Amino acid sequence: MTQMSEAIKGNITPQMEAVAEYERMEVNKILHGLANGTIVIPKNINRDTNTCGIGAGLTTKVNANIGSSSKIEDLDLELKKAKLAVEYGADTVMDLSTGPKLNEFRKSILNEIDVPLGTVPIYEAGVHTLNNNKEIIDMDKDLFFKVIESQAKEGVDYMTLHCGITKEIIPKIQNQKRKMGVVSRGGTFLASWILHNECENPLYENYDYLLEIAYEYDITLSLGDGLRPGCLHDASDIPQIQELITLGGLVKRAQEEKVQVMVEGPGHIPLNQIKANMEVQKTLCHGAPFYVLGPIPTDIAPGYDHITSAIGGAIAASNGADFLCYVTPAEHLSLPSLEDVKEGVIATKIAAEVADVSLGLEKAWEKENEMSQARRDFDWDKQFEIALDSSKPRVYKDKCKIDDNEMCAMCGEYCAVKIAKDDF
Amino acid sequence: MTQMSEAIKGNITPQMEAVAEYERMEVNKILHGLANGTIVIPKNINRDTNTCGIGAGLTTKVNANIGSSSKIEDLDLELKKAKLAVEYGADTVMDLSTGPKLNEFRKSILNEIDVPLGTVPIYEAGVHTLNNNKEIIDMDKDLFFKVIESQAKEGVDYMTLHCGITKEIIPKIQNQKRKMGVVSRGGTFLASWILHNECENPLYENYDYLLEIAYEYDITLSLGDGLRPGCLHDASDIPQIQELITLGGLVKRAQEEKVQVMVEGPGHIPLNQIKANMEVQKTLCHGAPFYVLGPIPTDIAPGYDHITSAIGGAIAASNGADFLCYVTPAEHLSLPSLEDVKEGVIATKIAAEVADVSLGLEKAWEKENEMSQARRDFDWDKQFEIALDSSKPRVYKDKCKIDDNEMCAMCGEYCAVKIAKDDF
Repeated sequence: MTQMSEAIKGNITPQMEAVAEYERMEVNKILHGLANGTIVIPKNINRDTNTCGIGAGLTTKVNANIGSSSKIEDLDLELKKAKLAVEYGADTVMDLSTGPKLNEFRKSILNEIDVPLGTVPIYEAGVHTLNNNKEIIDMDKDLFFKVIESQAKEGVDYMTLHCGITKEIIPKIQNQKRKMGVVSRGGTFLASWILHNECENPLYENYDYLLEIAYEYDITLSLGDGLRPGCLHDASDIPQIQELITLGGLVKRAQEEKVQVMVEGPGHIPLNQIKANMEVQKTLCHGAPFYVLGPIPTDIAPGYDHITSAIGGAIAASNGADFLCYVTPAEHLSLPSLEDVKEGVIATKIAAEVADVSLGLEKAWEKENEMSQARRDFDWDKQFEIALDSSKPRVYKDKCKIDDNEMCAMCGEYCAVKIAKDDF
Repeated sequence: MTQMSEAIKGNITPQMEAVAEYERMEVNKILHGLANGTIVIPKNINRDTNTCGIGAGLTTKVNANIGSSSKIEDLDLELKKAKLAVEYGADTVMDLSTGPKLNEFRKSILNEIDVPLGTVPIYEAGVHTLNNNKEIIDMDKDLFFKVIESQAKEGVDYMTLHCGITKEIIPKIQNQKRKMGVVSRGGTFLASWILHNECENPLYENYDYLLEIAYEYDITLSLGDGLRPGCLHDASDIPQIQELITLGGLVKRAQEEKVQVMVEGPGHIPLNQIKANMEVQKTLCHGAPFYVLGPIPTDIAPGYDHITSAIGGAIAASNGADFLCYVTPAEHLSLPSLEDVKEGVIATKIAAEVADVSLGLEKAWEKENEMSQARRDFDWDKQFEIALDSSKPRVYKDKCKIDDNEMCAMCGEYCAVKIAKDDF
């Protein structure tokens, strides 16, 4: 059974109940969304996690990526990052480890955090291949599925799978003469593999088998955007949209098999193209939830990509994106530190709240109005309690050492709120 | 003479030439924009500054607010903030000092920085009043104009003047039952003064006199939005829009007298209302440049208002705002530190670039494409040179200590760009 198959039968699961309660919606709306594929609840049957619904009409969800790289592998630190991300409000975590001990780490993170966990199984296949002194293009076809199945058994809740990079699309990428080529790691592995082996993408060729595994464990497929643009110039080009068309077909096949599925999206996109990207995904992909990385609407602010991404994410989520992957200040430069993870989560939570307010969601507006009341009342503790991060604003306020509670160091006795309070 | 009067006569000034060169536009377009009031060049006849054009078709400009408060007055530090803001790309600076030594500070900042300087003269009038043991509501009418004239003589390039808060609008604010009342400092001074003295706003009543002073020194008027919303709930309400209608009438009178004029805007606005706010300002205010503070599309992230403001600013500027006032992480909490000023400027420069790219401006796209090429080439020095902040990304990169230049610690040898480089 999957959450989707139960929904189609009209059976309300405890997960649907939990999502309905969290979102303050009638459970029948959740059931209906699951049944028609516009909502997913990533939850492996072998894992007991907090329930998180993603999709149409629900609050915007936030994912944090953590994991080792081949250059830096500190499992304790990565686990700390995952926990910190959840503490600051990440709804899900993805383990993108590519360090040699990635299997060990995945098992520990599955035990230690209680939000849905996502992975990109091809990383394990790639690392395994390189560890055996072979090159990525020599990756064994069977290994793809072996890895997917073993991770499914372990309890991984959702998986990024780059099923849309086909043999047919390869020359289109080459003809496009992109400035940044292919920037998705999994996408590059597959594109290079297809090109050099002159074979079809195994994940595309054996998609039915993939659906069987996904159905068995109720894995939510997250169809990867291997050809997402890597810079503004490459945005919304033929390879990107062609892959999205393919993904749309694969969404339909997954939904027909009652497998939960969402679609991943760009990437680097100029602000004026974000809305169109969201709308095209919704039409081509049959309303499946859209999971976007960024988008980043400028490339000239390395070190501040959490901010650029918050801009893009807010616009994306207010125009149809359901699920935002965070971007940290370390993006394009290094693995993030603990502080970077915190900054990345908060920036993305801001984008999610901005979108949810814009869409008129009751939960979001309630917090906004509580904050306004707390400000009018000069109730600083309440303000910090509502704040996405309580500690940082408290530090600012405490540094001022002002005895009058009804002002801050910015305006002092010229505080407009204080002066106008009784009159307006 | 003013830049506008010269433009109407068809005379090209050195300032118009400088703006045209910076913007890579034909000087006749600048002249035309000045003549029809859609472009301003804030520059007091008594001051020699860098030239900065603000308005339709030009790159989005960024302002940084600095200045003492009654609680913290460290003139050296404020001067350092102003210089740091300019170093990181602020196009103008406003001195919002309300500390007792505000006159001394303004004189020094006028000498020490070379970008246009703006002020809010009513602060000086307010501080003078309180220093004489009187209350704001006892402010002397004549003092308003005395202060404006003396600051004009000193060389202030543009002034925020809350001319749109009229006697007629006061009951409308009270009837509105706003959650946050009036949150503009200057707006509160005037609203309270009007309410308690039962007199008309002197800046409105004697607007012709104001225009005479502005014409004499070529002060660019920045008509203040004293009734901007202080929280999302109050956005786009009757007092806000009613004041904007009044400001639109005052814009017309200024333009008729060949006085340069722009209009200030909100504030706290839900994302879905930002575009409408920009469009309504353009129609009501005869195309005058729009100078916005934020807007901030969520209130629940104190300590991170530079990020929320970057979201709102990017949307505003891509929909008609011409000039973005920065917001620092200290907003709503305290006076900003040097680090806060830097963060605020960079976040706002990001918003400006995102908007300029979105609007298709050649200057903005050139930087984007250069960055992509530098990334593809693994030319890290070039990347840092183009970056809005060179130092922060360099620290990330240097921390990694990776000998292979063609990768970073995030992906190591699994770098997609490296793998795909030759094939795609």
